[in-house]
Order: sequence, then structure tokens, then C-alpha cells
Amino acid sequence: MRTNNATTLTKYVYTFGDGKAEGHAAMKELLGGKGANLAEMNRIGLPVPPGFTLTTEACTLYIKKGREKAFEAIEEEVKAGIRHLEHLMGSGFGDRYQPLLVSVRSGARVSMPGMMDTVLNLGLNDESVEGLSEKSQNPRFAWDAYRRLIQMYGDVVLGLKPEKGETDPFDQQIQLLKSEKGVSRDSDLSVDDLRQLVGTFKQLIQEKTGNAFPQDPWVQLWGAIFAVFESWNNERAALYRKLNGIPDDWGTAVNVQAMVYGNLGDHSATGVAFTRDAATGENRFNGEFLLNAQGEDVVAGIRTPQEVSLEGSRRWASRAGISEALRKEQYPSLEELMPEVYQQLADYAHKLERHYKDMQDIEFTIQEGKLWILQTRTGKRTGTAMVKIAMDMLKEGMLNEKEALMRIDAPRIDDLLHPVFEDEALKGARVIARGLPASPGAASGQIVFFADDAKAWAAQGKDTILVRHETSPEDLRGMHLAKGILTNRGGMTSHAAIVARGMGKCCITGAGEIEVNYQQKTITVQGEVLKEGDWISLNGSTGEVYAGKLPTQNPSLTTELRDLLALADKHAKLKVRANADTAEDAQLARDFGARGIGLARTEHMFFEADQIVAMREMILADDTAGRRKALAKILPIQRSDFEALFERMHDLPVTIRLLDPPLHEFLPHEEENQRQMAETMGVSLEEIQKKVASLTEANPMMGHRGCRLGITFPEITEVQTRAIIEAALNVKKRGIHVKPEIMVPLIGRYREFVLQEAIIRKTAEKVFEEQGERISFHVGTMIEVPRAALTADHIAEYAEFFSFGTNDLTQLTFGFSRDDIGKFLPVYLKEKILDFDPFKQIDEGGVGRLVAYAAEKGRAARPGMPLGACGEHGGNPESIDFFHRAGLDYVSCSPFRVPVARVAAAQANIRNRGE
Amino acid sequence: MRTNNATTLTKYVYTFGDGKAEGHAAMKELLGGKGANLAEMNRIGLPVPPGFTLTTEACTLYIKKGREKAFEAIEEEVKAGIRHLEHLMGSGFGDRYQPLLVSVRSGARVSMPGMMDTVLNLGLNDESVEGLSEKSQNPRFAWDAYRRLIQMYGDVVLGLKPEKGETDPFDQQIQLLKSEKGVSRDSDLSVDDLRQLVGTFKQLIQEKTGNAFPQDPWVQLWGAIFAVFESWNNERAALYRKLNGIPDDWGTAVNVQAMVYGNLGDHSATGVAFTRDAATGENRFNGEFLLNAQGEDVVAGIRTPQEVSLEGSRRWASRAGISEALRKEQYPSLEELMPEVYQQLADYAHKLERHYKDMQDIEFTIQEGKLWILQTRTGKRTGTAMVKIAMDMLKEGMLNEKEALMRIDAPRIDDLLHPVFEDEALKGARVIARGLPASPGAASGQIVFFADDAKAWAAQGKDTILVRHETSPEDLRGMHLAKGILTNRGGMTSHAAIVARGMGKCCITGAGEIEVNYQQKTITVQGEVLKEGDWISLNGSTGEVYAGKLPTQNPSLTTELRDLLALADKHAKLKVRANADTAEDAQLARDFGARGIGLARTEHMFFEADQIVAMREMILADDTAGRRKALAKILPIQRSDFEALFERMHDLPVTIRLLDPPLHEFLPHEEENQRQMAETMGVSLEEIQKKVASLTEANPMMGHRGCRLGITFPEITEVQTRAIIEAALNVKKRGIHVKPEIMVPLIGRYREFVLQEAIIRKTAEKVFEEQGERISFHVGTMIEVPRAALTADHIAEYAEFFSFGTNDLTQLTFGFSRDDIGKFLPVYLKEKILDFDPFKQIDEGGVGRLVAYAAEKGRAARPGMPLGACGEHGGNPESIDFFHRAGLDYVSCSPFRVPVARVAAAQANIRNRGE
Repeated sequence: MRTNNATTLTKYVYTFGDGKAEGHAAMKELLGGKGANLAEMNRIGLPVPPGFTLTTEACTLYIKKGREKAFEAIEEEVKAGIRHLEHLMGSGFGDRYQPLLVSVRSGARVSMPGMMDTVLNLGLNDESVEGLSEKSQNPRFAWDAYRRLIQMYGDVVLGLKPEKGETDPFDQQIQLLKSEKGVSRDSDLSVDDLRQLVGTFKQLIQEKTGNAFPQDPWVQLWGAIFAVFESWNNERAALYRKLNGIPDDWGTAVNVQAMVYGNLGDHSATGVAFTRDAATGENRFNGEFLLNAQGEDVVAGIRTPQEVSLEGSRRWASRAGISEALRKEQYPSLEELMPEVYQQLADYAHKLERHYKDMQDIEFTIQEGKLWILQTRTGKRTGTAMVKIAMDMLKEGMLNEKEALMRIDAPRIDDLLHPVFEDEALKGARVIARGLPASPGAASGQIVFFADDAKAWAAQGKDTILVRHETSPEDLRGMHLAKGILTNRGGMTSHAAIVARGMGKCCITGAGEIEVNYQQKTITVQGEVLKEGDWISLNGSTGEVYAGKLPTQNPSLTTELRDLLALADKHAKLKVRANADTAEDAQLARDFGARGIGLARTEHMFFEADQIVAMREMILADDTAGRRKALAKILPIQRSDFEALFERMHDLPVTIRLLDPPLHEFLPHEEENQRQMAETMGVSLEEIQKKVASLTEANPMMGHRGCRLGITFPEITEVQTRAIIEAALNVKKRGIHVKPEIMVPLIGRYREFVLQEAIIRKTAEKVFEEQGERISFHVGTMIEVPRAALTADHIAEYAEFFSFGTNDLTQLTFGFSRDDIGKFLPVYLKEKILDFDPFKQIDEGGVGRLVAYAAEKGRAARPGMPLGACGEHGGNPESIDFFHRAGLDYVSCSPFRVPVARVAAAQANIRNRGE
Repeated sequence: MRTNNATTLTKYVYTFGDGKAEGHAAMKELLGGKGANLAEMNRIGLPVPPGFTLTTEACTLYIKKGREKAFEAIEEEVKAGIRHLEHLMGSGFGDRYQPLLVSVRSGARVSMPGMMDTVLNLGLNDESVEGLSEKSQNPRFAWDAYRRLIQMYGDVVLGLKPEKGETDPFDQQIQLLKSEKGVSRDSDLSVDDLRQLVGTFKQLIQEKTGNAFPQDPWVQLWGAIFAVFESWNNERAALYRKLNGIPDDWGTAVNVQAMVYGNLGDHSATGVAFTRDAATGENRFNGEFLLNAQGEDVVAGIRTPQEVSLEGSRRWASRAGISEALRKEQYPSLEELMPEVYQQLADYAHKLERHYKDMQDIEFTIQEGKLWILQTRTGKRTGTAMVKIAMDMLKEGMLNEKEALMRIDAPRIDDLLHPVFEDEALKGARVIARGLPASPGAASGQIVFFADDAKAWAAQGKDTILVRHETSPEDLRGMHLAKGILTNRGGMTSHAAIVARGMGKCCITGAGEIEVNYQQKTITVQGEVLKEGDWISLNGSTGEVYAGKLPTQNPSLTTELRDLLALADKHAKLKVRANADTAEDAQLARDFGARGIGLARTEHMFFEADQIVAMREMILADDTAGRRKALAKILPIQRSDFEALFERMHDLPVTIRLLDPPLHEFLPHEEENQRQMAETMGVSLEEIQKKVASLTEANPMMGHRGCRLGITFPEITEVQTRAIIEAALNVKKRGIHVKPEIMVPLIGRYREFVLQEAIIRKTAEKVFEEQGERISFHVGTMIEVPRAALTADHIAEYAEFFSFGTNDLTQLTFGFSRDDIGKFLPVYLKEKILDFDPFKQIDEGGVGRLVAYAAEKGRAARPGMPLGACGEHGGNPESIDFFHRAGLDYVSCSPFRVPVARVAAAQANIRNRGE
């Protein structure tokens, strides 16, 4: 019926509704993401509130030709669209008694947060608000809807935004009115209050714009449509596009959709349904609803929602101790109240689960007996439910093996491996602070501030939470014995975070709101003071700190999880090793399915009581002879540690990294501890303080560490090599097959490697000669300095394997000290300068270029050379996907992360084969 | 006359002598570097002591086939070689009265330090030592030569090396004898002592090897030849080859050459001659000699050497206040003593200078009236002489323009721009310590330890040397007013070094032998204590610290230097800009020929008295409003600083970097200063200490600095931009043309740049609107983070220019904190892990790959985009050569370095065109 000549060939409006749609899912370029999706939901037969989409072409026409031309081109089609809605909804646009109300929303091809302007309840005016009042018999609802329309319209269409630093002008009026009336919540305002507010709002618009709020729904509609078009070019959106490389000429689509209400009487309702149990994963349809209510009422929690199914309702009642009679009277299920609607809902739910092949979370509204599906999305679930649902759907034949694997959100497997708070425990629990979820799990304990106290209290059988500004290697023993660790500095890859994840211990870092006072042994948070011995609880998976003691429950490895992991190994190409420094960790890693040790950090061994004294003697020694003497004491202890590692890891490779951290880390920094060390070692406090001062560096991360230690003090490399080789020969004598891999850290130029390798091979030969027996071993290096990656071709001529140390590589490639990023990383993430924390997920665009380059150059120089990655990224699924694509052989991560990595490795292989 | 069938076709020995040679300069592969060179010297007619070279093929034959086969193959040719020597020298190998003595030296294709085994005086035995005694009438010389032969033979041929940690067994015996005799110097041993030593040495050899020291010269010779062959495969040499990629099968050549002696009576002499004056560059032949002496006697300085030419001799005498009569009697010139030999020498000198087209330093020996040229090499000279000689030779037509430019050792131009010690001053001056030559020049002053003292003493007209562990921005004012700066920590690119070079102020860093005690205001060096007020002197060009006051003289810009620099600009492609932060520096830079400012560091301005208070207010402020208030005070001061820079640099580009260093650098770290600041600002000391603590970072180099400041505190970027733009408009009103370039530091991802650029452009537009006038300006970035280089293509889509900040890029690419490398860099240089300090010369293999990659990607994304480099490397000739090759447009360096860079830029262009 189009009459406009100029645009005869272009269709600007696509309608949907009543199980039909002119568009479909693949038309995102024209209809935007939201519009295409609304069309698709109609196409699969869902009763979605009808509407229409103005195409992105309409927007670009507006931008190029202006409002007049655009209006001319789209007027007739929009009018037809509204007629379509009136027809399907049985109401009239601007009708006094049965007003058609619509929402107007922007929707570009890709999601553009910060540009999604929305106007709801459009179509209301001074007359139809009365109609809505009568029809709903709920004047409060009608007037609240009207004041919302005016407020959103004022903001989005008329541009009444708050001035910089001020609050929204409409909100100011609400605050004013509330304080006048002496009430605190919006919902405490009466119908008359809302009426008054509508008047104030309209007056505000008149004053600020010189025009009255438009009573004509058509004027409202056109205003909203063009405002959304206009918003494409606002400053925020333009900057967002520039940052994200989105072309300026794409334009946005506009969706106009009928509003439906669940609060138009006792045949109306609103609710949420799930196709399976989100907590346990059991295959049972369930959900909650409220009669004669809006969605917000469910959220507000003022009324108790009822169960959708009869079975669910009975289950709920029995748990709540409510009799069947009372239940039936006061809390009947939807199945009992509206059996037909219930059956429709259950059918749709079933259909949706089959369509999306996943558990669905469905929002619905029943308006005067008619069921509307507002939204469906993949349902949130616990880790346990996630695994069960995937494996159940595999058994049910709904998913094949690869699909079942791809259904897993790998990091959430963590939930199945760590303690969690009991469900009931969290009710009424008080969050006193939030930090970073540095290591998952739940823990309750009494506050202690020093590692020694954690040790002493643990000896008395007490549970403790070790609270520190940040931790250092000195705190290791205490961290081991505490139930959880809380710091107020540091990030996701601070010392505390890394060590805790390695131990599988609950940890929250960077809880900056908490002030820690070591002297007084107190913490202060929001004015509240907690002291040593007070109970707190940590949720390491969310970063929440609770006051008091909350009971926890231990996890169990379910059959479904075991099956899932076996399935993952079947489909993975990348192997998963573990970072482990002790026999216990090695055993744990093996239990979790690790295929070897990718990183054994020898420095962690040095902190054991026997070794630390000898280590400190070595550091205090002024010459080679003195260092050798001290190292001779370390040798047998290291050797026996390596033997234990080799025994647990029999038949699998064990990569041992030579000493890496700067020496000052082995000296105490607090005077108390220094004094103790002085006594133990029989030297003066001054001597120790002088040594500490002489080892102090401006930037220790880039200082005298890694192979730089082995080069300046070759005797360290000699003794460590001797300990490794002797240990390997010892276990060999006991019939255990071992594959030691000696890894030289922090190489930047091949010559560093050549010199260290010469010492290693020479020492090994000496041991072989002494013992009259040989073993084969490999010598390789970490690639963790950008220069090493850039010159990987040279290094690969000498090194037998590479292991990418992506923690340090990330630090140096970005120039980010991971201990210091707290001051700007949050801003970087908020402003979207970074899309994610590059210490959690590998930065493919920068660090990844180096990894890929080094992998390629390394393999070119030494075909088939083994490549691994052993940074924190080794346990991160997105990074694992990248390592898979870069052609690595394995990743290595903390033992508790091994199951996650195994699944991620399988997913990477499936995803990248495009199957 | 060869008789061996198997090797008929292979020639293993190449002779030279008497102005003829079988080999020549191009035969390095066969004859080794030294052998080829000896042949070439003969070919141009020099009377070089005759000899022969065993080829590298002889060595490989020995290595593959063993001693017997090799001996068989070369025996006859070696014998013929010795006969050749006997003939030319008129002596006999093993002759009792006229013994032919030879040296045996290794000489591979490329220089291999640590493998150059040498045996001298070979041919001496119990009999011929007596003959040499008689002939020389110098038994002490003969017996000393003999004991040297036995010692070297024992070491090189018989392998009597010192055990690990012990001293050489022969040296032990010398020490023993000296303490027995109660003498301290070797030269105090008598003839009988030396005889006794020869006996002891022979006994030592008998005991250790079971064989007597061979009396047969042929046995000696074969032993030496095969020992040199064997040394090719020793551990040290093999590791050296592995490190340097030298094939194991190259082998080494062996040079056997007749020994000549200048101490065989009054017709013998030894000396050194120069073709031009090494101090002034004047074109006059000169030199010194000693009659009846060995080269060592000249070095020992026991006798006063005489001048070679009569004119030189007279000049010397008049300067020393010696009468002509006395001169003639006691210190006659060679020209007077042996006029013919003198003429020969002068002729050879002339010939050599023409051959090598450069001033020559010639070692000669006259043995019984016959002149031998032992060595000729390019003569060392002062910077002044270097420039004068090159420009003279250009005028003389000996060199063309390009050759004259290539003759310049660019860094030594520095000598012409800085004060130097007076020639006479250094005689008897005592070096008390050595450090790194961080900034050239000479300075004398009284020791002070604190910047404030330097200031106070300077106000009293005193010259001071500021002595610190290391300097920080707080010391800037004191550094300005001191004559020189001495630190006992830090390297060539420490704060002190960089700032001092920028100021053109003499500086020595990292003089680790010196203990500095701030409390007692003393320095202790080798037990000696110097206190505040004591005089010391620094030579910043050599790193030497002298006790006491040494007079200095100021340089003057010679005509030759001006001509040279003009010539350089004519031949250069790369432009040279300067790093300058003040109007004075900018003027200096302009005077030295800079073509703009490549780096103006705004933070240096902040340290000026007026600004530092406001800056600290800004840092202490807790919110945006507080920061804005403080910044408002900074604005007018910065604006006027920029105006001054623009005025001096009219018509040239000025690149201004936005605030870069971490904020803690602007706060005092010593309690005294903190207290002062607290008073000035009216806040508590605790508040300041709390702020300092909160700004403390684990690795500040990688912390909250650079654009990270501008992103977290956008108001800083706003105010700096406003100051720049307002300054540019102000000078424009005065008719001055300016080209501001605003540089955003420490970009790692393009989004950081986009956000900062948006603020800059918005602020500039605001200023343009306010003032109703515009200027054009550019916004670009430093490429100093590896990630920026790796993603230069993305960044270049937005940034209008790149300036490579190679200091930080080097730190991050290597993972070297330049403040902390003191502990391992010396070892790295000694062990040849690094060939040079990468902070002085750019590391082409690693950092250079990033620079080249970024330059290419940047230009691909933005064709013709200007590229510069502004790190310390901008003044380093090797790095300038690299930047030229990488296609950069300019380098920027400290003003005093501009002349050096201009010459280096010309040389880079000439060198890389292969002309």
C-alpha cells in the first residue's frame, strides 16, 4: 500500500507477532541484533508481544537526508506497523479505554552498551492513564506507568539529562516529594503523590523545553523513533564506535513492541520458569509466579511467589513446613489455577529447550488469561547442575559428545572442587567488604595477622583466616595452615592469589575497603573494628567477605564429572600438566589427571625450615667458597624433595625450573624476623639489615633474578643440577622411570642459555661418572622476556624445549607490574581500554603475537620442539584456546585447575576444527 | 722440494720478509687475520721482521689426522721457512753465537680473545743464552729472555697452568725468590737471581712433566706449533666459538716470526713515531725513542725518552727549560744520531699514512743499525686532533668529503665541547676510584652530599662535586649548581647519568668502591676517608676520580669543527633534534645545530620552585575538584615555560611529552624534606608520609605512570594541553611560527591513545573557540612499551607520529631495570653474554626488531608518518646507524650530543649507501 515514489523499492519496517515474522535470525545487519532475535522467536512459534522493527537503513537515511526526508519515507510503513499491533492486541493507539502501549528501543547490529536508549509505556496521556486505571483497577500502577513515560521521554527524547555532577532533574523532584511526605521508598508514594509528580514532571518539561509534554501518542512515537536514530551520533556512541572499530555508517535499528501487563487483575500474572533444576540439574520443569503483579514485584520480594508446577509447589510446602490444605488455599500452583495456561507454558518450555539444546530461563506474563513469553535465555545454574545437565542431555541424545563438552562453562568446574557455604548459611549473612575472587572456595576462620600465629593457632586446632596487606614468601607456611587468606592489596596475580590457587586455598585479594593494622592486630571496615580472633568468612569464588562464622560443606567428585573429564581427554589435543612444588601437590595433580609437571618452582622448597637457614647462609656469604659451603647443606634436602616429586610423577615428565626470584625474597623484611634470623645465624642484626639493603632494588621484577643469578653465581646452578640428577638416578635404582626437564628461567639472549646449559651438562656428566649410571634429560628454557620471544630462533638452536612464562611475558610486554596495577586496572577495565585483565586471560593481540612468533621461529629452528605454557594463563579457557591455536603441546596450571583445563583443551580442539 | 706424495698439491707454509710475501691481505681464511696482515705489510715494502705462517689447513689436518700425519705433511715446509729466516736475519736456529730467536703465535680468521697463545724468545737454550749475553753485552736481558721462554713454554706447550684458585706455578717461584732476596720488583732481581730462577723453572718442568725442558730449538718449535693447533680445541675456545657461531672446522693459523731486539748496544734502539701531532693534529712527524732498550723500558718510564726529530727535540727542550747544549749532549734526536735511519723512518711513516689514509702510530726497533717496523696502527689522538687531521687531509686532497667524515670517531667530538683537565695537571694526579664515564668533561670541586648544600655553597662562590648513592628528581637543583656529580650506584642510564648528560655536566656513576656516609658526611675509598669540603676531581670522559684539585680548561669550537658539522649535514639524511626542557637548553640545542625539539619532558618543569608546591597539592588532593584547583595554579607557569621553548625553537617542531613519571617522584622521600613540605603546605607530616606510602610501588617503572596518569586523572591531560595550545597561540600573536607536537607517553593499546587524543583535541578546540584563533598541531605517541611496537599498525591508525622511547623499550624488552643492572651487567659484559651495554647502544637483534617492525607497520597504516627516536640511543653513533637503516626521520638527543649525532647521521648515510 506504499504510495511514496522515491522509496518504492526499499522496505523500512519489518513486523512480527502471533507466531509470524517478516524478518529472521540471519537479518542482523538490517534489523539489528534485537530485532532479528524478536523475529526469530516468533518464527519458532512463541507468543511474543507483537511489534515491528525499523531497519538500520531507515536510520542511515535519517542521518544522511535529515528528519523530513526520513519521515516521508517511513511514515506509511510505521502507521501500518501500529495498525498491525492494534489488530493483534485488540487495542487502539491513543484509545481512551483500551490504549495500545508500546516500548521503543534501539538495537544496533552489535551490542553497544551506553547507547541503548529505551522509552516504555509510550501511548499514555492524560486521558488514557485514566482508562488504564479503570481497566487495571490499579490507579497506582497506571499513574506510576505514566510518570515513568514522562521521565524517560524527557531524558531520551527531550534531552533533559542531568548536568555534570548533578542528579537527574526528575529524580530530584522525586526526592523532594519523598522528603516532603516523609517516606523513604518510591513505593510508599500514594496515587495522589504520583498524580502530583506527573504534574511536576510536565511542568519541568514545559519550563526546560518551552513545550508541553505531547499528549498525541503519534507525536510521542515519532519523537522516540527519531531520538533513537539521533542517539547513534551522540558523543558517547561515536567514541565507543571509534574504540571498537564499528563503522559510523552502520546505523541502529529501532524496535517498537506492544507492552503487556501481568497486573490487570486475577487472570493476569507474571513469572519465571526453568526447564530443569538450576541447583541440582535434575530434569524437572519448575518456576515461580505472582498473580496480578508486574515483574518488579517479583524482584522486590514483598509477596511470596508461588510455584508453577504442582509437584514443585508440594515440594516447597513440605520444606517450608506448610500443610497441603494451607498450601492449596494460599499458595496454589499455576498448574492448579490455570491448567491450560500451565500446559502451554510447559510445552513452550520443552520446545525452547529442544530448540536451544540447553536449559532455559523463561520470563512470562499472563495478561487477562493470555500467555506471553517475554524472554528466554540460557538458564544460570550451579556448577554441579551444569555438569549434570550436559551429561544428561548427552545420554538423552539431545547433545552429541562435542556439543555436551561445548555446553560446559569450564571455569565453573571449580565449584565442584572446592568447599562452598551451606545454602542456608548465606541467609542473613552480612557482607562487610568485597575484594577480588582470587582463589575459589569458601572458608570460615578466626582472624590472625601473622604466619606464625596461623601456625600456632592451627596447632591448637583452630581455624584461621590470615589477613595481610599482601603476602610474601615468608608467609608460605602460615598460608598453608590457614583456612583462607585475605589481603587488602594486590590483584588476581599477586603473590597471595597465585600461591593460594596453587594450594587450592580460598583467597580474596585487594579488598581495599579494609584497613589492616598489624600493630593493634585489628581490621577496620566501614567504621567497624574487628580484632584478632574474631570470626570472618570468605567466598573466594565471588570475593565477598562476611562477618562471623558461616558453615561450609565439602564437595564430592561426582560420577558425571568423572565422565565429563574422560570425555574431554578423548577430544583434546593439548595436554594438561600441573604446576607443583611438593609431593602432595604432585599427588593432587595426578589425581586430577595431570599429564606431568610443567613447572616445579625450586624456590618454594627453599622456604622449608631446614633449607631457609642454609639459603640465608648462602646469601650472606661474600665469596664462592662460602656460597658452596652453604649450598652443600641444601643439596641433600633438594635431592630428597626431587625424589619425592619424581616418585609421584613416575613415567611422566617433570619440568624443574632453576632458582628464579631475587635473593632478597629469602631474607626477612620485618625487624622482628631479622632479629630472629640474626640470633639463629649468630651474626649481627646490622649485618642482616645491610645485606637486605644491598639487595634492595628499584624494580625487582626486572632485577637480579632468574638465570642472572645462575650466571653471577654458577655454583647455584651446579648444586641444583646435581640435586636433580642425583635424585633421578636414585629413583631409577628403585625402578622408577623419570623424565627430568631442567628449565633455565628468564633467558633474554641465547648466550645466557649456552653458558647455563654448559654448567648443567658438565655437572650432570660428573654425576654420571661418579655413579657409573646415566639417565637422559632435557635442558630448555622459559620464554618470558620479550627479547627471548623475539630471538626464539637463536635460542631454539640450543634449548630443547620452550615453556612460555606468560605471567612475566605479560608484565614486560605491557609494562604492567602486576603488584601495582591496582591503581589503574579498574579504570582500564571500566573504560574498556582493556577488554579483560591480561593477567587472567592472555592478550592475544600483543603478548599472543610474541608467543605465536616464538612458537613458529622455535619450531622452524628445531622441528618438533616441545612447547608449553606455564603461567597463570595455563588454567584459563580463553587462553587455552589460544595456546591450542598457537600449536603448543601442553599447558601447565595449578592442580586444582587441571580439570578446568582438560575441558577447555577439548573445547579448544572442537571449536577450532569448526565442528 | 716437497717429497711427501699425499700432500703434494697443498701448500701449508707462506713466508714473508724483506719486503716480499707469499700471502696478502685477502687471504684471511687461509692465513688468519694476523698472518694475512703481516704478509700485506711486507708487500707495501715495510721492513717487518721476517717469518712464515702455517695455514689454517695445517691445523685442520692436525685435528683430523693427528700429530704424526700433520708433522709428515708440514715438516719440510717449516724447515724451509726457518732457513728463510736464518738467511734474512743472518743468524742460525740453535746457533751458539748468533742464535735465531722466534716468536710463535696463534692467529685465527677472526679475533678470538682467550685463545691467543704466544711463545716468545723461542730458540734460546743453555748455550745460546750465553751467546746472547755476550752479543748484547747484557746478560740480564739474555737470562730474563730465557726465563720468559721457559715460563711461556711451560704454560702454553706443557700445560703447567695454575690450579683453580691458585696462582701460576712459575709466578709462585718468582714471588718466593723476591721475598727471599727482599726485593719488590722483578727488575730488582740480579743476573744471578735470574740464572737461579731458570734452574728452578727447569726443575719444576722436570718434576711436573717427567721430562726436561727441551734444549733442541726444533723440539721447542714443534712443541709450540702443535700446542697452538691443540689450543683450537680447548674448552674456553670451544665455548667461545659456540657463543659466536664460529664453525669448529675453521682451525687457527700459526705465525712464526723472527725476534728483533733494540737493546743489542748503542746502534740499537726502540721507539714509537706518529705521522702527525696526536694532541693538536698538526701535520708534523714526531715520536720518541730510547737507545739500547726494549719496548718495555719505554713503558717502564725509568729512562727519559728522546725525541725522534730535531725540531721535536728542540721544542721539547725549550718547554722543559733545557739548554740547546745540554739537549744536544744528553738528549740528541734520532735525526742527529742516525740521520739515515731517521730518514728511512720518516719515509716509511709518510708511506704508511698515504697507504692507510690516516695518522699512523708506528712501533719500530733498530737492531744494530737496521730499522725494523714492528707494527703500525691508526694513531690515537685527542678529539681536537681527530677533527683537525680529517679536515686537513680533506684540504690536502688525501681524503674526499665522505672519507673525511668516515675518519671521525663521532663520540669523541664530545671532547671538543666539554672542559678538560690541563695537560700538566694530570702528571702526578692520583686516581682514587673508577666509575662509569656517565657524562663527559672534567670538573674539580669540594665534596658536598646534599642538593641544598650544593646550592648554599654555590651561592658562596664555591665549586662543588655532589656525591650521592644515586640522585633523584629532588636533587635536580643541586645538580645544576654543582660542577660535577659522583654516585656509587647506578649505570650509564641512571637518573644522575641522564640528567647530567642533558645538562652537559661532568658525571661519574656507579663508582662502587666508594662508600658514602650521609650521616657523617664522608666518603671512604680503599681505607682513605674524605669529608665534606675536601677537594676531588672527576674525569667524566674516562670515569676516573682523582684526589685533590686539578685545574681544567674550557674548550672552544674550532673552525675545523664548524666546517665538519656543515659537511655532515650535507651528507646526512637523518635529522637531529634535541631533548630540551628549558629555554636555555633549547638555545644551546639550536646553537649546536638541532633541527627541533624531539622531547620536552614536562615533568622537569614541575620541579621548579613555583610549580612543585602546586604539583604536590594536586597529588595530595583526594578528588577531581581538588586536583583541578591545584592544576589551575600550574597552568600559567607551564604556559610561560612552553612560550619560552617555542620562542627559541621558532620555525622548528617542538615535541612535548605529557606527564610521564609516577607521582611519588614529586614527593620528598627524606623525613627532613617531608617535614618541610608539611610546613609549607600546612598539612601534617603523617598525611604526607601516608601519601608517600600509598604511592609506593613494587616496580614503579611498570606502575602508575605515563598515559596511565592521564587516563586516571584526565584533568592533568586537559591542563597540559591547554598550557601548550595557549602558549602556541600567544607566541603566534607575536609573529612566531610554531609547530607543537603533543606526545602521549607509554601507550600499550590504541584505545589508551584514542581516549587521550579525544581529551587533547576537545581541549584544544575549546581554547581555539575562546581565543577565536587556531593553530595546527599534531598528536602522536611514544613507542616504548613492547606491546605498542607489536600493535603499531593499530596505533598508527590514530597517532600522527611515533617517537621511539628506546630507554624504556630496552628495559621492557630485556626485562632489565636500568637502576638495578649493576649487579649483573658487568658480568654479562665480561662473559660476552652481551657485546655492549644495551642502554648505550641499541640492541638490534631484540629491541631493534621491535623498532623495525613498528616502523614498518606504522608506515603501512599511515604512509609517510614521521618517525623519530628520543631515548639515550639518539646520541649513540651505532644506534644512529640503525635508526637510519630502520627508515626513521630523526633522532633526538641531549643538546651537547647534537654535534656527535650530526656526524653519526652523515656516516650512517655514507656507510649504508656502500660508497
